[in-house]
Amino acid sequence: MANINENYLNLQGSYLFADIAKKVADYQAAHADADIIRLGIGDVTLPLVPAVIDAMSKAVQEMGKAETFRGYGPEQGYDFLRQAIIDGDYKPLGIKIAPDEVFVSDGAKSDVGNIQELFSEDNIIAITDPVYPVYLDSNVMGGRTGEAVDGIFQKVVYLPTSAENNFSPEFPTEHVDIVYLCSPNNPTGTVLSRTRLAEWINWCKENDVILMFDSAYEAFISTDDTVHSIYEIEGAREVAIEFRSFSKTAGFTGTRCAYAVVPKEITGKTKSGERQALNPMWNRRQCTKFNGVPYIIQRGAEAVYTKEGREQTRTNIAYYKENARIIKEGLESIGLTVYGGVDAPYIWLKTPENMTSWELFDILLEKVQIVSTPGSGFGPHGEGYLRLTSFGSRENTIRAVERIKTLQF
Amino acid sequence: MANINENYLNLQGSYLFADIAKKVADYQAAHADADIIRLGIGDVTLPLVPAVIDAMSKAVQEMGKAETFRGYGPEQGYDFLRQAIIDGDYKPLGIKIAPDEVFVSDGAKSDVGNIQELFSEDNIIAITDPVYPVYLDSNVMGGRTGEAVDGIFQKVVYLPTSAENNFSPEFPTEHVDIVYLCSPNNPTGTVLSRTRLAEWINWCKENDVILMFDSAYEAFISTDDTVHSIYEIEGAREVAIEFRSFSKTAGFTGTRCAYAVVPKEITGKTKSGERQALNPMWNRRQCTKFNGVPYIIQRGAEAVYTKEGREQTRTNIAYYKENARIIKEGLESIGLTVYGGVDAPYIWLKTPENMTSWELFDILLEKVQIVSTPGSGFGPHGEGYLRLTSFGSRENTIRAVERIKTLQF
Repeated sequence: MANINENYLNLQGSYLFADIAKKVADYQAAHADADIIRLGIGDVTLPLVPAVIDAMSKAVQEMGKAETFRGYGPEQGYDFLRQAIIDGDYKPLGIKIAPDEVFVSDGAKSDVGNIQELFSEDNIIAITDPVYPVYLDSNVMGGRTGEAVDGIFQKVVYLPTSAENNFSPEFPTEHVDIVYLCSPNNPTGTVLSRTRLAEWINWCKENDVILMFDSAYEAFISTDDTVHSIYEIEGAREVAIEFRSFSKTAGFTGTRCAYAVVPKEITGKTKSGERQALNPMWNRRQCTKFNGVPYIIQRGAEAVYTKEGREQTRTNIAYYKENARIIKEGLESIGLTVYGGVDAPYIWLKTPENMTSWELFDILLEKVQIVSTPGSGFGPHGEGYLRLTSFGSRENTIRAVERIKTLQF
Repeated sequence: MANINENYLNLQGSYLFADIAKKVADYQAAHADADIIRLGIGDVTLPLVPAVIDAMSKAVQEMGKAETFRGYGPEQGYDFLRQAIIDGDYKPLGIKIAPDEVFVSDGAKSDVGNIQELFSEDNIIAITDPVYPVYLDSNVMGGRTGEAVDGIFQKVVYLPTSAENNFSPEFPTEHVDIVYLCSPNNPTGTVLSRTRLAEWINWCKENDVILMFDSAYEAFISTDDTVHSIYEIEGAREVAIEFRSFSKTAGFTGTRCAYAVVPKEITGKTKSGERQALNPMWNRRQCTKFNGVPYIIQRGAEAVYTKEGREQTRTNIAYYKENARIIKEGLESIGLTVYGGVDAPYIWLKTPENMTSWELFDILLEKVQIVSTPGSGFGPHGEGYLRLTSFGSRENTIRAVERIKTLQF
C-alpha cells in the first residue's frame, strides 16, 4: 500500500487565477459585447526577436541533417550557452563565475521549486509577504511548512513587505535557515537597494542563512541603486544562489530557458556539522532527474547575447517599460498611489479609500472592463493592493489607462 | 544553518560511464591511430525526420510573429499534443485515456525521477537487477532506500533478472509498495510477455502495489506476445503509471519530449488509510514545479503522429532494428549467447568462459577497438553480461561485428 506524501494535503488551493478567470467569464457571459482589457497576467505578448528566430531556425535545420544532428546534450547545458551567459550577464559586472557554476534549465519556476530538494525537511524558510507562490508551495510539498491555519503556514517565517517598510522587509527575528528574495520583485514591482542587499548578505553570513535570490526581472532595471546580480555584493558567493530566466528578458515564457548559478563556495551542513558544498549536489540532482534543455532552444537563448539579439531584446524591454510608465503616470495623474513600474513590468497600486483588493478588482472589471490581479492573492500583506502588468499592447495599455481615469474614487 | 538532504550522501558515485570514458581515453592516448567504434551509449544517431523538422520550422516562424506567438502554455502540455498521443498511441490499441490523464514533459528521466515526490519516505520500492539507474537514484535522494552496503541499498527489494529466469523476475516475497518495470528492457533488451504482465497487474492489485511502467522503447517491439501499453492489461488503470518518450521513438534525445499517463483510478493512501487519487497530485506537482515543454518542441512531437511522421520514424526504427539483427546474428554465428535485440535497441551478450563484464569489455576495447557497456554497471545481476546498442551507423555496426568475429573465445 503506497503511502502518499501527505505534505501535499497541506497545499492551499491555488484559487487566485481560477477565481479571476471565473469572475471574468461570468462578466463576459452577462455582457457579451464587453471589450475586456487584460492587465492581470504576467505573460509577455511581443514575439521572439529575429536574432532568436534565426538561430532557432538554423538549429532546427541542423537537427535534420546527420552531420549536425545532436542527441543527448550535457544535463547542465551546452558550453556555448554557459559561456555566453557568463560573458553576457556577469563579465560586464566584473563578476567571475565559472562555467560549471551555471546550470541551464527549462525555467526559473522549475529551479526555485527543485532547489529545495537539496535541503532536509527541518529547515526553516523565510519568504516575503506578498510573494511569488512557487517558493512557498514547493516547500509545502517538501514538508518544510507544517499545516496552514487561516492560510498561514505554521513553520514559515513571513516577512511583511509593503509601503510601510518601503517594500524592504526587516530581517527575521526568529531562527531561519533559508530566505527567498526576489528583486525586482514580483508582485510589487519594487527593487531592494544595493545597500540593503549588502546588509542582507552580511546578515546571511552572520546567521549562516542561505539566500535564494530570484532576479528573473533583472532586464527591467533602470535605477542605479540596485544590483543586476547578487554577486555584485561582496561575500554573496558564500551564501547566495541566483535564479535567472529568459522568460521576461527575451520573451521565452513559451520557449522555456533559464539558469541557476550555484557558486562552489556555498555550503549547507550535515547533522554532524560537516559542511557540504551545494554545487556538486545540484549537479547530481540535475544529472539524475533532468536531461537538459533542447539544443534548439539553447541556440535561441545563446542568440539573445549577440549584438543583434541584445539590441532587439532591449527594444522589447523598452516597449514594456514605456507601457509601465504610461500606467504609472496615468494612475498618479488622478491621485492614485502607485509603486513599482520603474524597474519591473509590474505596477503595484494601492487601493484608494481602504478598499480591499477584490473590491477594487471588481470595480475595474465591472466599470471599465479591465482585468487585474488582487494583491491579497499573493499573501496577507498584499491586501489593499492590486497588480497591473505592462505586458499588454501599447494600444490596450493606453486605452486601459484612459478608462481608469474616468473613474471617480 | 541550512541542513542538507543527507540522503544525497547515500548516492553511489555514478562511475560507470566515467570509468568507461577513462578506459577509452587511455586506450586512445596509447594508440593514437585506433579506429574505435562506439556501441556503448544508448543515444540515437539518425537525424530528426523531415515531418518533425518541417513542423518545428513552422512553429519557430510562428513564434516570431505577433499574431501567432505563444507565451506560457499549459503545464500539462497543449491539447493538440495530448490528443495526438491518445489518438496515435492508445486508440489503435482500444485503450481509452482521457486528455487530462496525459502529462507532457521534457523527458521520461524527469518523470520517473519526479514521480517519487508523490510518495512518502517510508514506502518500500522494488527494482529489477540489472536496472536503469534513475529509478534507484531518485529514490535514494528521496530517502526511500537507506544506506548502501557493498553497493546494495538496505531498504530496496532487488528482483534478479537474468537468463536463469528468462529475464522475467519473480514477484517480491517481501512487502513492497512500489515496483518499477521496464519493458522492452534497458539494459537487457528483453520484453515481459503479455501473460506475465497480466500476472504482474493482478499481483499489484492483490497486494495494493503501484506499478511504474516504463515503455520508452515500445516502438522497437516486433513480437506479438507483449504489450505496447500496460493499459492493454485489464485492471492496469487501477495500479499502473506509464512512462513514454519521443527520445528513442523519434530521435528526440536532444529535443526533449516525453509523457506520463496517470489514470484517474490510481490511488495511494494516507496514514489514516484514506485513498488519495494520484492524478490531481501529479497535476499539482507539475503546475507548481514545471512550466511545460516548449511550444516548438510540442509541435515537433505532434508531427510524429502524422502519416508522414509515422512512416519516416518507422523507417528509422527499422534501421536500428536491422542493426540489432546484424549484431545478434553475427555474434550468435560464432557461438556467443545473446539476448535482446529483437524488441529493443539493446543486445545483452553473455560473456563467454565465465569472464566478468569488465574482462570482456577490455578484450573488445583492446583487441578490436569496440566500446561496450559492462552489464555489472547496471547492478550485481548484470555481472557476466555486456550491453551493445544498435544506435550506430550501419557501416560501423557491420564493421564492429566483423571485428568481433575475428576473436577466439
